[in-house]
Formats: sequence, structure tokens, C-alpha cells
Amino acid sequence: MSVETSVFSPANPESAAAPVGRSVASTSDIKYPPIVAATPSFDPNKMQELLDGPMRPTRDRVKAILTRPEFRYYKGTDKDEHRTIVFNWLLELAHEGIGRLGYPAIAGGEGDTRKFLAAFETIALHDLSLTIKFGVQFGLFGGSIQQLGTEHHHEKYLKPCGQGALPGCFAMTELGHGSNVRDIETTATYDAATQTFEIHSPTQSAGKTYIGNAACHGRMATVFAQLIVAGECHGVHAFVVPIRSAEGYMLPGVRIEDNGNKLGLPGVDNGRIWFDHVRIPRTDLLDRFASVSPEGVYSSPIASQSARFFTMLGTLVGGRVSIASAGNQAAKSALAIAIRYGARRRQFSGGKDPQECLLLDYPTHQRRLMPRLANVYALHFAIRALGEFYAKPNRDEKETRQLEATAAGLKAWSTWNATAAIQIARECCGGDGYIAANRFASLKADSDIFTTFEGDNTVLMQLLAKNLLMEYGGKFKSMSTLDMVQFFGTQSMDRLAEMNPLVTTKVDKDHLRDTDFHLSALRYREQRILEGAAKRMRRLVKSGVESYQAYLQCQVRFGELAEASVEREIAERFAESVIKVVDPAIRTVLRDLLDLYCLSTIEKHDGWYLEYGYLGGKKTKMIRREVDELCEKIRHQAVALVDSFGIPEELLSAPIALR
Amino acid sequence: MSVETSVFSPANPESAAAPVGRSVASTSDIKYPPIVAATPSFDPNKMQELLDGPMRPTRDRVKAILTRPEFRYYKGTDKDEHRTIVFNWLLELAHEGIGRLGYPAIAGGEGDTRKFLAAFETIALHDLSLTIKFGVQFGLFGGSIQQLGTEHHHEKYLKPCGQGALPGCFAMTELGHGSNVRDIETTATYDAATQTFEIHSPTQSAGKTYIGNAACHGRMATVFAQLIVAGECHGVHAFVVPIRSAEGYMLPGVRIEDNGNKLGLPGVDNGRIWFDHVRIPRTDLLDRFASVSPEGVYSSPIASQSARFFTMLGTLVGGRVSIASAGNQAAKSALAIAIRYGARRRQFSGGKDPQECLLLDYPTHQRRLMPRLANVYALHFAIRALGEFYAKPNRDEKETRQLEATAAGLKAWSTWNATAAIQIARECCGGDGYIAANRFASLKADSDIFTTFEGDNTVLMQLLAKNLLMEYGGKFKSMSTLDMVQFFGTQSMDRLAEMNPLVTTKVDKDHLRDTDFHLSALRYREQRILEGAAKRMRRLVKSGVESYQAYLQCQVRFGELAEASVEREIAERFAESVIKVVDPAIRTVLRDLLDLYCLSTIEKHDGWYLEYGYLGGKKTKMIRREVDELCEKIRHQAVALVDSFGIPEELLSAPIALR
Repeated sequence: MSVETSVFSPANPESAAAPVGRSVASTSDIKYPPIVAATPSFDPNKMQELLDGPMRPTRDRVKAILTRPEFRYYKGTDKDEHRTIVFNWLLELAHEGIGRLGYPAIAGGEGDTRKFLAAFETIALHDLSLTIKFGVQFGLFGGSIQQLGTEHHHEKYLKPCGQGALPGCFAMTELGHGSNVRDIETTATYDAATQTFEIHSPTQSAGKTYIGNAACHGRMATVFAQLIVAGECHGVHAFVVPIRSAEGYMLPGVRIEDNGNKLGLPGVDNGRIWFDHVRIPRTDLLDRFASVSPEGVYSSPIASQSARFFTMLGTLVGGRVSIASAGNQAAKSALAIAIRYGARRRQFSGGKDPQECLLLDYPTHQRRLMPRLANVYALHFAIRALGEFYAKPNRDEKETRQLEATAAGLKAWSTWNATAAIQIARECCGGDGYIAANRFASLKADSDIFTTFEGDNTVLMQLLAKNLLMEYGGKFKSMSTLDMVQFFGTQSMDRLAEMNPLVTTKVDKDHLRDTDFHLSALRYREQRILEGAAKRMRRLVKSGVESYQAYLQCQVRFGELAEASVEREIAERFAESVIKVVDPAIRTVLRDLLDLYCLSTIEKHDGWYLEYGYLGGKKTKMIRREVDELCEKIRHQAVALVDSFGIPEELLSAPIALR
Repeated sequence: MSVETSVFSPANPESAAAPVGRSVASTSDIKYPPIVAATPSFDPNKMQELLDGPMRPTRDRVKAILTRPEFRYYKGTDKDEHRTIVFNWLLELAHEGIGRLGYPAIAGGEGDTRKFLAAFETIALHDLSLTIKFGVQFGLFGGSIQQLGTEHHHEKYLKPCGQGALPGCFAMTELGHGSNVRDIETTATYDAATQTFEIHSPTQSAGKTYIGNAACHGRMATVFAQLIVAGECHGVHAFVVPIRSAEGYMLPGVRIEDNGNKLGLPGVDNGRIWFDHVRIPRTDLLDRFASVSPEGVYSSPIASQSARFFTMLGTLVGGRVSIASAGNQAAKSALAIAIRYGARRRQFSGGKDPQECLLLDYPTHQRRLMPRLANVYALHFAIRALGEFYAKPNRDEKETRQLEATAAGLKAWSTWNATAAIQIARECCGGDGYIAANRFASLKADSDIFTTFEGDNTVLMQLLAKNLLMEYGGKFKSMSTLDMVQFFGTQSMDRLAEMNPLVTTKVDKDHLRDTDFHLSALRYREQRILEGAAKRMRRLVKSGVESYQAYLQCQVRFGELAEASVEREIAERFAESVIKVVDPAIRTVLRDLLDLYCLSTIEKHDGWYLEYGYLGGKKTKMIRREVDELCEKIRHQAVALVDSFGIPEELLSAPIALR
């Protein structure tokens, strides 16, 4: 940046005339030096092909839409304007048929879940307000009708939903109950005389809140409420309830408040909804899992109320699959920006070289960014495997539970990783990272809620841990946490994770870079914590500790168990994918990323491994050195590795990252 | 939240009439359940007295101003409106004499640095845009004139600065050079004929950027530029340069651009400034450390250019002291909100208790929040000690360097801790944490830049490490990093941190809660890493590795060394403060916080301690258990502990946290 440029011509008469207190013009004509990147060892186009996978045509179709001029990012801070723009984008996507890709033919869709997931994932490279608005309309509102309703609902509601003609909400969360859905207060009381349900919010805390599409655009909502028939409560069920007329006027008995300004997602119109004895026809109960006859007889193919509840909620797992992927896409955008910036920004002169040193050449910089890049790659393959599992028809009960548990864990881990990766990426760009045009502002703020919506991450990790314990105990049926704790009180635990004593001290390079060693170490950790937690619960219950107290005493360890499990899961899925790669150049660099993911994960838990004697002190030291080396090695491929994400420049958009 | 309330009266005719796409009203009349807190074991008023310290009257004086109705937070998103409001707040603080507390009498001040720091710290409980605007005006612009100028500048510029009559900027950072100030491009060329300096930006990248007060309100700037006298460059010096007329029109030769929307601090008008051969009188060189005679003879009491540079920059250490404290205040606000919320929000029913469980009663919740609370307390005392060290007159060279190193480390550690604590606090409040009115949005966004401004944290940590190494090598004079690396190549290293072998396996409770054990462990870690880094540098240099390459190979370890050093520093300062406390109830709870700070820090590095054999596996396990217990114990005092921060309800402001 030492070329003499005429910074004063053309003159800027406008700014020269601005009086104190009036903002001057903000132009963005800063020129950045070229991005310096050696020729990569692999072909980024081929890598992108691999990452895009068989759904590439869908991705390209969506990108072609999102790169149109009318999809240019909104740069202002006016929430109402932003919401209107996002709504128009949504309608455009609906018009292009993107929203209904996963819907059945009767609703005008292609019935292809994988296409829908690929489209959603691609949209997550754009304004996340659009991503979430899209997810609310087609995934949550539409998805709930698709999953919980039957043909008549698909024809009547899902079709206009997919066309964008019926904007809708997903009204589950209440002011009083967020994570604990089972105890929501909204009621739906059947009246046989009129063959209607009366939807009602008995208290202020029964109000639905954070409901996307509620404050401005929604005309209908899937409302979750306690179903009461003839005085008997049958638990939570879902109903479609109109909230606004076609002209947009709120319907009688419906009260809506705007959630107001939020930390992020300014383009999503979240609101609160209360119902005052609102009547809907009997047929607007979404009746796939339960129905009420005209005379008021309740019936369901699932006998247990608890099993029914978990089955209904389980069908909504697509939301978690989607958020896991949206979080990872946000992290990709952030890393792409920071890595390209690090390959052009120089600071401090480096020894004999007269030029200052590129940020990416600093080992501290590599140590901050490269493990996150490896995480993002690893997650990419793990989330794709999850999406394929989700898209698979006819899952049995065990598979369904595994899907839910894996989705819970990956959603939590991916969104936490995204929060951390975006933060690191922002900091790695210094002051430039703080300028809104460089995208960290929105990436950070918008994705922030990912860690607590669609299931609070801490709660999701408990759910995963519970599932692991039940499987370990040979119990493949759903049960409550307290029942599970009691169950463990009666089990004898004699399996113990086996440890290969040779592993403790082996430090040759081949071994340190051996995937078998990595996977064994990650599996051992999961298994050992699992056994420890099971034993501990057993001990507590046997010694007379009340189930709930016993659970609380194990809660922190359950979180660790879930973490260990997700980390092992990601490694396995990534490793499986790497083995299948035919192109040797691609396979080699992915193998480095796999090694970095695994070794930096093991390094993160080095205290645990040393404490349990699985690794010796010399070995943890060698692992640290190996991580250093891998960071340095991958740094030289880093620009090509983020180019391979295939993020169009229009969407990446940050001036500091553009070529 | 189960009391039946009439949620539909009074009717909301306005919202009922809102057509689709028009936002409905956003009211904030949500009632939250009472905050549940057992009577604490100590008196929160007494704790506040201790935390406020001798500067309490200043703090109260500032709080009395900030709680006035006109200081009510701006709730909108219009940057220009926000900037105007913040500027008016700034003028009000100036009018009340708060800005000039630290200035000498000749500038109308009280000459009391401690008062100024206390005022700044208190303002950091308010909108952080005000905090930074205040810091720019009185700390950076005023502070540079105070520290680098002489009496004539104090009278002419510092006085109106303190009165708010002369809004000013601190123009150091350039587009091309952020962290590397020594290589900035702006020039100040002396012209003996006219006895003026010509301030000039030779390239686009020489433009000053992120300059607070530049886009709207600044009329003058302290400009850092390479001083050239008679063709010879004397390095970076500071000049006062007018940029706008009294009426606010930009002066000839000055070009300013708005930095535009930022991630946070929307109320601060950051901008870029370029100078086109702007002439200023000879006397407007800030000439405490160097001057130019009318004839053009350069002179300075400091012979070496490098030493002069570090001396000048060193006087600006107050900025880092202030940011360390502002970061910790932001963390206090966030924890106060999350802890009060956790003491009122219930979710999921807990065993026999018919009520749902308070969030704070979940061990996972305690594990997330309590160590951060301990960190914030520990930092409070460490930062106060730093402030007192800073306020102490007549520091010798060694003390000056220690001050700079400690300020660098504490600024970095405190702001990283703040970023993490605010994030955790936000997540602990779930969806409610995402609503802007609950303050995490602004706390998070505004404080985000703290980790990279006033010195990028990663660079500051290297600075601290370098200082530790020089001290270790017995070198108390400043030298460049490369010289230092070379120096180590000539040293023999035979001191070795001593380890008490008994410590490795001792696990009784008295020992685990013994401050001597904690401090020894933290000191050992610092010392051991220090020796390792020194030896490694020596080995590299001796084996012929070029200095810069040798430095790079040690860079990651330097970061660890700095972290270990700050963590030890914080523990020592906190421990010293706890010992002095007279009230036994206060001392007891502070002792718990000290133990939690120390043990959770040791736990964080358990891998390191195990690897180096300082702790055995049984002991790390017992430490983990001890941390669990302390989290649970402190949870019961947590509400009182955040009440003791003395944050006025008007400033805390978050509806979810108000009583």
C-alpha cells in the first residue's frame, strides 16, 4: 500500500460543506492489496464439486437467484424497511418454487427433502434474516403442516404456503415455557355442539413469543396447545389457526405484539400472540397422530401420551438439521472473509524480507483460524450425513431416536462452533472486522440466536446424553429423564471401555497421524464418560438419592458426554467421507483437515486423556506440536480451501475479502 | 406465571387495525416472577463500599448524572440520531466537570487521575457509545495533549477540551498500519521559512481510520506523523491539527469520510481523515519529548529514536487501563442481568417440588456463570491495583515498563473475558437474551471492539511476553523483539522453576482451598513456560535460525506465557485485597470467589499441569469436584454478589433483570 495515489481528487465538495454534527459521506473506495496465495495442491473446483455433492444443480439454481441485483444486501438499520425487503425476497423464492421443493406433489412440491435442505443451506450464505424467514415459512409453518397434518391439510394449506400465498407462523414457544414445551399453557378445548376447537391463552405467560412472521406478515399459525376433550387433557397438539385476514387485519380474538428490536435478525418480524377464545373448525387439528371425532371422541394410533408427544415433536427434527447447517454456513462465510483478509493484510516487517508479514504467516493467526477451518470442513460432511439420514424414508423407532439425538448434538456443536469461529474471524480482521460492510456484524448478531433456538443447546446436549445412556442400558424406548435415572439404579455395569496400553506412549509420526488412533481416542473418551455417568447414577440411586437430585448431580457430566459423543460422530462421518474420495490431491488435503480436526479435539481434552492415563505427557506434547505443524501446512492451502466453499462474491460481499 | 390475567383488556384497537406488512405495537408490559434469593451471608452494601473504594463519592456523583431522565438509553437504530444524543450526553458530562477531573489546574482540572478512572469506570455501566466517546474526547484527545504536550498546550487546548468546547480526535491508526504504529505513513515536514509543519497523507493507505469524533463532531485532532526536519526523519511525533472550523465546516486540505455502520458503538462517529499539505504552526508539535527550534534544529532529551517512540506511546497507557476496566464493567452488567434472570426464571419441574426449577439451580447453569462471576471479581481488584499503579507519580523506567506490560496483559485478558462472559450470559437468558431491550445486544456489539482496539489483544500479549523475557534475562531496557531474540542466544539458562513434589498428590480439602497452593501453581506455570520459551529461543538462535524466524517459532508459546502471567497477576492482586478485608463475612465470600477464580484457572490448564507432572490425575479430578462445589456454594450468594456491583436500575435497565 505504498503507491502514491491522488487521495484528494476528485474533490469532495459535499463533505467539505458538512457542518459539525452532520455526518459526512461514507464511501467504500478503499483499495486492498492483492490476495497472496500459492497454487494449491488440489483443484478448488473439484473440491467444490465434492462439497456441493449431488445437489449441486439445486445449489446453483438458488445461487443464480440470490446473485440477482434485487437480492443485494440491505445496508440500512431500519427494521421495518429490512423486514419488507426480506419478505419480498421470500416471495421471490416462493415464486421460483424453492420453498416447496420438499413438499408432496399434492401441495405442488417435488417431494425431495434433500433438495430442500440444499436450497436452505445455500440461502444461509445470504442474509440470515432471509434464511430464517424462509425456514419459518417453508420449514416450520409448512413443515409442521406436512409432518403433523394429513392430505386435506396439505391440499388446503401447504399448497398456498409453498406458493408464498399464505404466510404463516410456527407458534410453539410461550413466554412462560421455552424449552419445556410439554408444559405450555395455551388450550384447545373441543366443543362437540359446534364441532369447533376453542384456542385460548389463559394467562399472560401463555402468550406465544419470538414467533417469526407474527409481527407483520403471517396470516395463519400452527399453534401448539393442550388439547382438552370433554374435560380431559390429552397433551400438546397442533392446530392451524388464522390470525390475520387476507387484507392483513388482525382477526377477532387475536392479539399480537411486536418483539421489537433484537440482537440480530432485524429482517425477521418476531412477535407475541395471545388468543381469546378463538374458534376453529374441528378439521383444523393437524391429525396425523391424533384426531377427535365430531361427537368428541379422542383417538390416536399411539397409546401413550408421552410417546405421542415425543413422536410429534420428533417429526420437527428437520429444523435442527437445518440450523446445524445454517450455523456452519455462517462460519464458512466468516472464515472465508478472515482467511482472504489474512492473505492480503500485512503488519510488522518480518526479518530480512523488506515487505511486512502477512497476517496468515503468523503462527498465532494460524492457530486461531486453521482448527476452525478444519471444524467447518468436518461439520460439513457430518451434517450432510445427517441430512441424508433425515431424508431417508421409513425410519424405524430406533433410527428415529438416533436421528433426533444426532440432530440435537450436531445442531448444538455446530452453532457453538459457529459462534466461536465468527468471533475469532472478526478479531483476526481487527478494526476492519468491525465495519458493518465487512459482514461480521450481521453474521455474528444474526447467528447468535442459533445456540438457543430450535432447542437450547444445553438442553439438546442433555437430550443426546440421555439417549446415549438409554442405548447403553439396552433401552430403546423413550422414557422420561427421571425414569431413566431410576432404571439405571437397577442395572449392573460391568462393561468397561478397553484401553490399548501401547497407545499411551506411542509418539511416532505415522501413529500420530493415524485415523485409527484418532477415532479410538475419541471413542474411548465417549465410552468412558458414558460408563462413568451410568455408574454414578446407579450409585446415587442405590444410596437413596431422589431421582431428580441424582440427575442434577450428573448433569454437568452429561454435557461432557454429549460433547464427546458429537466430537466422535463428526470424526467418524468425516473419516468415512475422506476414504471415499477418488481424487488423490483432494483426499490428501482433506486428510490433513481430518487430522487437524481430530488432533485439535484431542488436544482440547488433553487434561482428560492424561488424567485417565490414555495419553502420556510426552504424547500430549507431541500432539500439540503436530497441531502446530498441521496449522502451518493447511495455512498454505487455506485460501483455496475457502474458495472451495463456492460462495459467490456477491454474497460474500465484504470489501476486505473480495478479489 | 400461572395467575389468570386479563390479557385482552384493554383492547388494542391500534394493533387490531394494522394491515399485513405494517408492524404492530411493541409494548413491554411483560411481568416477570420475583427474583428468588436467600438472605446472603454478607451485607451487599458493605461489599459495594469495598468495591467502590475511596473513589465512591466520584462514582456516586457520576451515577447521579447518568440516572437523570435525559440520560435514558436511546432505543432506536438510527445512527445519526444516536450520535447526536451521545454528543449531548458528552457535553453534559463536560459541563458537570467530569471530563477534566484528571487534568492539571491550568486546564481547569483537579489533577486527580484516580477520580478520572473512577468516573470512566462508572460511565462504562451506561451506553458504551458514551463511554468510548468520553474516552476519545477526554482520555485520548485530551490525554495526548496532557501527556505529550507542555503547559502552553494545556492552557490553549486542554482547557477547552475539558469544557467540551473543543471536540477532538486521536488520529493515530492508519488504513495501512493499525498495530504497527511505528511504520505509519503520514508525514509532518518542517518548513523553517514559514515556521510551520506541513501535515500530509502521501498515499491512500496513510489515511487515519476508525478515528472517533472524526465523522461528525471533531474540530481538532492529535495527529501522529513521521517528523521530517531538513530531510531527516525523526520518527513518529504528535501534532495538534485543526480539522473543522468553529461552525463545523471542514478546513481546507482536510478530507474526512464516515466509517459508516459498524458492528457496535453506533453512537460514536468514527471516520477516516486524509491531509493534503495542511500547515500548522511550529508550536503545535506536542513537545514534551522533542522539539524543533524556529531554525529547524531537532532536539530531544531522549537520545534513541526507539526509546523516544516507546516513551511517547507509553504515556498513553491510560487508554489500556481504562479499556480493561470498561470491559470488566460490561461483563458485570451482563452477569448481573443473567444472574438475576436465572434467579426468577423457571423451566422444567424438579422432582418432588411442584414448582419448576430455577435456572440458577441447574449445575450446568452454575458452571457457566459462577466462574465468570469469580473472574469479574478478581479482575475488579487487579484492575484497581493497576489504576493505582498508573496514578502513582514519578515512576522509574523499570516501573514504567512493568506498568505497560501489566496494562497490556490485563487489557487483553479482561476484554477477552468480557466477550466470553457476555456471550455466556446472553445464552443463559435464551430467547429473552436476544431481545434488544434486555441489553445483551448492545453490550455484546459495543464491547466487541475492545479486544482489538487500544492495541490488538494478540499483539499486547506478545508485548507482555517480551517484557517478561527481558526481565528474566536481566535486561531492563527496552529493545526490539529481534534484539531480544538475539540477546537470548547469548544467555545461559540454568534457573529452573522449583516444584514441590508433595504438591502433586496432596488432595485434602484444606490444601485444595489453600491460597498458597493456588498461587504457587499459577507462579510455577508462568515460570516454567518462561524458562521454556527462553531456552527454546536460545536453542534456535544458537542453531543458526534467523532471529525473526526464531521469534515466529516461539510466538504461540509467548501467547501462553502472557496468559499464564496475567492469570498469576490477577490472582496475586485479588489475594492481597482479600487479606486486607476486615469484615469477616465479606472476607469469607471473597475468599470463595478467589478460590473459584484460582481453581477454575488451574482446571482450565489441567492438561498442562498433568503434562509437567505438577499435578497428578487424582488431584485434577478433586480440583474439578472442588470447582463444582464452589459453583454451587457461590450460586446461593450470586444475586447479592451482583447487587453489590451497585449498578443503578436505570442503567441496568433490562426488563428481565429489574426487581
